[in-house]
Formats: sequence, C-alpha cells, structure tokens
Amino acid sequence: MSRELFVLTYGALVAQLCKDYEKDEDVNKYLDRMGYGIGIRLIEDFLARSAVRKCHSYSEIADMIAQVAFKMYLGITPSVTCINKRGNKFSLILNKNPLVDFVEELPAGRSSLCYCNLLCGVIRGALEMINLAAEVTFIQDRLKGDDVTEIGITFLRKLEDKKCKKK
Amino acid sequence: MSRELFVLTYGALVAQLCKDYEKDEDVNKYLDRMGYGIGIRLIEDFLARSAVRKCHSYSEIADMIAQVAFKMYLGITPSVTCINKRGNKFSLILNKNPLVDFVEELPAGRSSLCYCNLLCGVIRGALEMINLAAEVTFIQDRLKGDDVTEIGITFLRKLEDKKCKKK
Repeated sequence: MSRELFVLTYGALVAQLCKDYEKDEDVNKYLDRMGYGIGIRLIEDFLARSAVRKCHSYSEIADMIAQVAFKMYLGITPSVTCINKRGNKFSLILNKNPLVDFVEELPAGRSSLCYCNLLCGVIRGALEMINLAAEVTFIQDRLKGDDVTEIGITFLRKLEDKKCKKK
Repeated sequence: MSRELFVLTYGALVAQLCKDYEKDEDVNKYLDRMGYGIGIRLIEDFLARSAVRKCHSYSEIADMIAQVAFKMYLGITPSVTCINKRGNKFSLILNKNPLVDFVEELPAGRSSLCYCNLLCGVIRGALEMINLAAEVTFIQDRLKGDDVTEIGITFLRKLEDKKCKKK
C-alpha cells in the first residue's frame, strides 16, 4: 500500500482541526488525543504482527518503538538515544518524516502547531496498553525550522494490570 | 508501509466530522470535498509512478482506476463493468475494502453516512486534473448491509484545458 494517500489524508485531517480550533494548543491536544485512541487499538495489531519478545528495560522498549514499530507503520527507523542518567528519558531522531512529505511549511499563523502530534498520542496509547505510563512530545520539528525532528519519550511508571478493562 | 495506521487515522477523521456535522449528508459532502482536494494532488504522484500510457476510451480509464490506481493506493483491485449503452457509466465492485478494516458497522444514528466517501472525491479530483468531469458516488455499501461495496463513476464530459490554472 502506498503512503501518499495516507499522508494527504492526514494533511486533510490537520487542516480540518485547524478550521475547528483556533488555538494551536487545542489542535495539538486534539491530535494527541486522537492518536491515543489509535494507539490503544494499534498495539494489538503490532503485537500480533511483530511477534516481539518481552522487553526487560525502557531502553529495549525505546529501541523496539524505533526499529520495529516506526519501520512497520511509517517505513522509517529513527535513531534512539537515552538522555538521562535514570535511564527513562529517550530521544528519537527522525531524519525523514514521511507524514510531512507534501508539507513545506506550517500553515500561516500556526507557528505552535505540532503537525505530527498524532504520533505522540499513538505511542502514548500503545504504551499504556502494555501498562506503561509515558509522556511523549515533540522536542524539535523541522517544520518549525529545527535541524531535525525529535520526539521525546519519558517513561513515568509501570501501571497496574487493568484486568477489569479487558474485554 | 502498513495500512493499519492509515485506516485508524481515517476512522478518526470520520469520527471528527461526525462530531462537527450533525447531518450525514454534510459529512458525506465534506468527505467528498476533502477527497477532491487530495485527488487533485495525488494525480501527479500517480502519473509519475505508474507511467501509464494515454487512454483512448472511458472504458480504458475505468480499468486504469481499478487495476492500477486502487492497486497502488489501497492494495485492492475492484472489478469493473460498464453499465450503460453510451459507455460512460461504470460500476466498480470492491469485494474487500481495506478502509473499513476496523469498522464493523456505521456509528449509531448515522445510517446515511457514506463512510468512505473520501474515495469518491479523490477519483473525481484526479479525473478533473486530466480534464474529465465525472460524477462518483457510492451505489452500494457493505457497511449499510448491502452484499457488496460498489462505486459508480459516470463520465460527464471532457473539460477544456485549464491552462490559466496551471502553476
């Protein structure tokens, strides 16, 4: 399946949200929330298709996200660096970002828009389903003039098994 | 690139529009208009990548849409039938529709929703860029309980070269 239709459809979604919400922060929040809803469904597909082994550290999980999940769903492999001593903060550097293939710059007056914020929500939602609370945000973004696009993942804590929530 | 992320993102887009517009007709119209905007951009990508030869009849164009474009962007090949004597009305039967992979039924109270109407707009937009006016609509839809999903394409006329509109 070719990615162009997806990339253009995603662009249409962001444009729709920009029409609906005046503040960039609200669009960002909405994209994140929408992504969260996608992530909690996508994780099943991911676990079924990737047949990954159990991870034993945050570092292994971060590698898995970058090398298996990004590769599978977006066709790219960000580089991963742990950026604190405690070992729970990671930086994913995306040299290429297929989601912005047709986007040259942020829409006028939208300088605080995190265009790809859906991805943060997807990661957050998927991690929550494997009982990991995390904060996921864009730290740098080429669309905002930064040199690279960087997603930050901070693992916060393990969650209790939410057995009551299972089907 | 895997289609699951796209399919779930498309679902989130439709859900957002259902939140924004009360009437199914308005959601359908909006999806079609959004698709149109995608189609007029996607055609360039399609022509560049498919290296298709010039078509000499509506029938050849309908085949091209089903066998090359659908295959390329959605990974499926609908069957095509010409359904009138004049030779300008075609029916595309989709036995599988990847866009509804995660959708079991239409949302409650949304029985007139054309969930995949974006596709109609994409086809209409792309055809307009090669100077063909067409009407594209869903005729049957499995999500509405029909046996198959069917898209109808009616070629209306050739358009004048819109040279003034070119970049």
